[in-house]
Amino acid sequence: MKKTTIIQREKTELKNPILIEGLPGLGIVGRIAIEYLIKGLKAKKLAELYSPHFAYYVLVTEEGSARLLCSKFYYWKDADEKNDLILLTGDSQPQTIEGQYEVAGSILDFAKKKKVNLIITIGGYRKEVKGVPEILASSTNPELLDKALEAGAKTIPVGNPIVGTAGLILGLAKFKEVNVICLLAETPGYMPDPKAAKSVLTVLIKMLNLNVSLAGLDREISKSKQIEEKIIKIEEQRKISELTRRKIEEDKVSYIS
Amino acid sequence: MKKTTIIQREKTELKNPILIEGLPGLGIVGRIAIEYLIKGLKAKKLAELYSPHFAYYVLVTEEGSARLLCSKFYYWKDADEKNDLILLTGDSQPQTIEGQYEVAGSILDFAKKKKVNLIITIGGYRKEVKGVPEILASSTNPELLDKALEAGAKTIPVGNPIVGTAGLILGLAKFKEVNVICLLAETPGYMPDPKAAKSVLTVLIKMLNLNVSLAGLDREISKSKQIEEKIIKIEEQRKISELTRRKIEEDKVSYIS
Amino acid sequence: MKKTTIIQREKTELKNPILIEGLPGLGIVGRIAIEYLIKGLKAKKLAELYSPHFAYYVLVTEEGSARLLCSKFYYWKDADEKNDLILLTGDSQPQTIEGQYEVAGSILDFAKKKKVNLIITIGGYRKEVKGVPEILASSTNPELLDKALEAGAKTIPVGNPIVGTAGLILGLAKFKEVNVICLLAETPGYMPDPKAAKSVLTVLIKMLNLNVSLAGLDREISKSKQIEEKIIKIEEQRKISELTRRKIEEDKVSYIS
Amino acid sequence: MKKTTIIQREKTELKNPILIEGLPGLGIVGRIAIEYLIKGLKAKKLAELYSPHFAYYVLVTEEGSARLLCSKFYYWKDADEKNDLILLTGDSQPQTIEGQYEVAGSILDFAKKKKVNLIITIGGYRKEVKGVPEILASSTNPELLDKALEAGAKTIPVGNPIVGTAGLILGLAKFKEVNVICLLAETPGYMPDPKAAKSVLTVLIKMLNLNVSLAGLDREISKSKQIEEKIIKIEEQRKISELTRRKIEEDKVSYIS
Repeated sequence: MKKTTIIQREKTELKNPILIEGLPGLGIVGRIAIEYLIKGLKAKKLAELYSPHFAYYVLVTEEGSARLLCSKFYYWKDADEKNDLILLTGDSQPQTIEGQYEVAGSILDFAKKKKVNLIITIGGYRKEVKGVPEILASSTNPELLDKALEAGAKTIPVGNPIVGTAGLILGLAKFKEVNVICLLAETPGYMPDPKAAKSVLTVLIKMLNLNVSLAGLDREISKSKQIEEKIIKIEEQRKISELTRRKIEEDKVSYIS
Repeated sequence: MKKTTIIQREKTELKNPILIEGLPGLGIVGRIAIEYLIKGLKAKKLAELYSPHFAYYVLVTEEGSARLLCSKFYYWKDADEKNDLILLTGDSQPQTIEGQYEVAGSILDFAKKKKVNLIITIGGYRKEVKGVPEILASSTNPELLDKALEAGAKTIPVGNPIVGTAGLILGLAKFKEVNVICLLAETPGYMPDPKAAKSVLTVLIKMLNLNVSLAGLDREISKSKQIEEKIIKIEEQRKISELTRRKIEEDKVSYIS
Repeated sequence: MKKTTIIQREKTELKNPILIEGLPGLGIVGRIAIEYLIKGLKAKKLAELYSPHFAYYVLVTEEGSARLLCSKFYYWKDADEKNDLILLTGDSQPQTIEGQYEVAGSILDFAKKKKVNLIITIGGYRKEVKGVPEILASSTNPELLDKALEAGAKTIPVGNPIVGTAGLILGLAKFKEVNVICLLAETPGYMPDPKAAKSVLTVLIKMLNLNVSLAGLDREISKSKQIEEKIIKIEEQRKISELTRRKIEEDKVSYIS
Repeated sequence: MKKTTIIQREKTELKNPILIEGLPGLGIVGRIAIEYLIKGLKAKKLAELYSPHFAYYVLVTEEGSARLLCSKFYYWKDADEKNDLILLTGDSQPQTIEGQYEVAGSILDFAKKKKVNLIITIGGYRKEVKGVPEILASSTNPELLDKALEAGAKTIPVGNPIVGTAGLILGLAKFKEVNVICLLAETPGYMPDPKAAKSVLTVLIKMLNLNVSLAGLDREISKSKQIEEKIIKIEEQRKISELTRRKIEEDKVSYIS
């Protein structure tokens, strides 16, 4: 494999499909959100994206085999025949600049082939959060942006960066003539953040009129709170041990000399 | 986008155009200078340069959209019909060696296509500065260098390096048969330095007989002085806090052990 | 040499060949195991693999010449005419992500050309080990995996990564339609670990019904234990010297000030 | 410039030419030696090698211009019409693995085009040296190696690495069917080391029966000794200042708290 490759796993006709992308990044927000949608909508596998720009390891699977890092496209057919969905998430972001451009370009090319007219990219936005994380939006299309604002999002301050695949798809969109909106959830970013994912899904569901309950995310939110509290305690313990250790060694030296 | 690409936005016939380049680098000197010229001359957009060698993020725009990192060419038509100008600045320098060579080569190719005979590259030269920053020049053409010296520049000590796009355009010039002069302003380099930009513009304006007032830069210079003083105070404060914190922790350990 | 190249050194017809790969990695397990097999089976050189993605140095040879870093394929002919073996080991793993994908792909292509139906990749699995290191297995083929489990291996926890060439060959296998099993030996990983290599060879020999004695490895195991004990002592000594040195310097300063 | 390029500056017929390469590396031994030969033999410019894998800066020249980093080939015509020489040195080594392979390959291709049958590569070998640095040799050809040993060189311990261009040319030689010998001078390596260069030239001159006096190098050796002594003093001073500074700050904190 010399370059990014997308392998289609199922042939199916999609109606006015919208592509929603969420690769892992800050707070793993995008991936948590997309995986929740895939489960909730019972979406089916459509295609896989492989790239020599992902990290060079494989992951052991449930069957005892192992698979390359990849991104996966799922599809969901809208019973109302308005907009089918393509949902994209994966194991990692590309590891080099050139890889980031290549993968984002491949996703856009695939979207065009599938006649996608709207892409929604999801990610995190680093911020210490008190209460409910807010959603920040940026779009190639002012009407789309308005729709997101009506659904509860805010605009991103001018000049701020959007890093990685969620940003590059937005930036490369104008060369491919496709509408893109990027939704970022505020997150401290250093831990998986289901609370941020819930915020972004709330806006998304309003925008697309989806029928998905977010109750399942509340369990993960309470779990992640407990983990965070444990980590803080462990870190405090670690610091004290480290300082104690150093002091003991210094005493030892005083003794030696 | 697999390689550096220049997209022309306006078709216009330019008369004996001179290209002046200033990408961000030490003290952001080049970019501050070029942006000031663009504003002062009311130059118009000519073309955009995109590259998969820039960093992999996008920047949010005033309309709420976001754009890829890029460099932008502007043009200005000389009322005296002597030398039209093409002004080039951008968001960042390429992030890899190979990218630096590719982008500098693309700029030179575009200049040749536009029948540019003279390129002026602008940057910073690291030095602690007291008083007015001096301008250092290097050129493929001895007459051009003399002209810069007459306008107040000094030569660069033999063997000194000129890093990044400003340097590579100068070095690659001989393969493209175009005259290049590089003007570097002395700058400590760690902060945006409008004072250095003013120095370089003073020389440039003399060399090209441009009719641009530099008064606007004085406001930015006094603003940047205030910021610098604040940063120094904050840094002192930070050091004291850090040392205090360490001492407190050591006391805690003494207490524990 | 612009890309990975395999140069065949001998033309020989191989019968149902199995390829066993062990490049250096954690604990150098793979390489120790393959080199032991090459010696024990008196395998002969088949081919060499060169790549501009290995590190940029050469190694001095016994004849006083020097050679590029490379990987070497050896072959062994099965007297029972069941499965000939191709044994692959080398000096290093590729140094970049893209290089890792390229080299693993080249190995798979060569295996296909040689009509290999089964590839066994060998490596280390980081773990502090007490007693005999256990062997962890992952395979593209459930029957193969069962065979490994019967021979004493355990499965790898779902979601765990397998890093480097041993993993990528496993992951890329499904694009090339070849069966692959990966055997990893538990190892702390920071030192050559013949004990781990012995564990993995024990499983391998059972699986393939090979007639190779592992007695030779016991000498290396006892040697490596002595080295490890020496290193621990040296490290303790180094820490004490470092602390003593610091204390002396601080005293000097107290004296100066 | 997308790849390494050699531009010939003069057309001249060379008789049985020997290429001697010395790019800067450990102790800058290779470059000091080659530059000394170029001067001593009054060799003339033959060609220049440019590469997008060198660092991305240019160097200011005596005429006030600037030039890309490059390597330069010089030639010297043997009055006895036995072996003309091509001497190669330059500003830097390539900055990436792939660049190292590409540049070494380009040098070999150029040598073949010039009908070179013997290449001598020169570099440093890291070692704390007392007295006269010894010369270590490795060669693709046993007779050549013997010739070096007779001229005073020693062999390199088996398995030792030879890093960079001097090593890669030796390693890649067998694919190009050209004889290569590599001569390394012992050097601590952290400073330009004319003493090591003198040692390597002593062996080289004996091997090639060249008529070059090495007296000029003695001046540089005594100069470099003085510089080294100064640097050691400055470094001692710096350490004491650093420790004093730290102590003062700690006292300040004690005072504050």
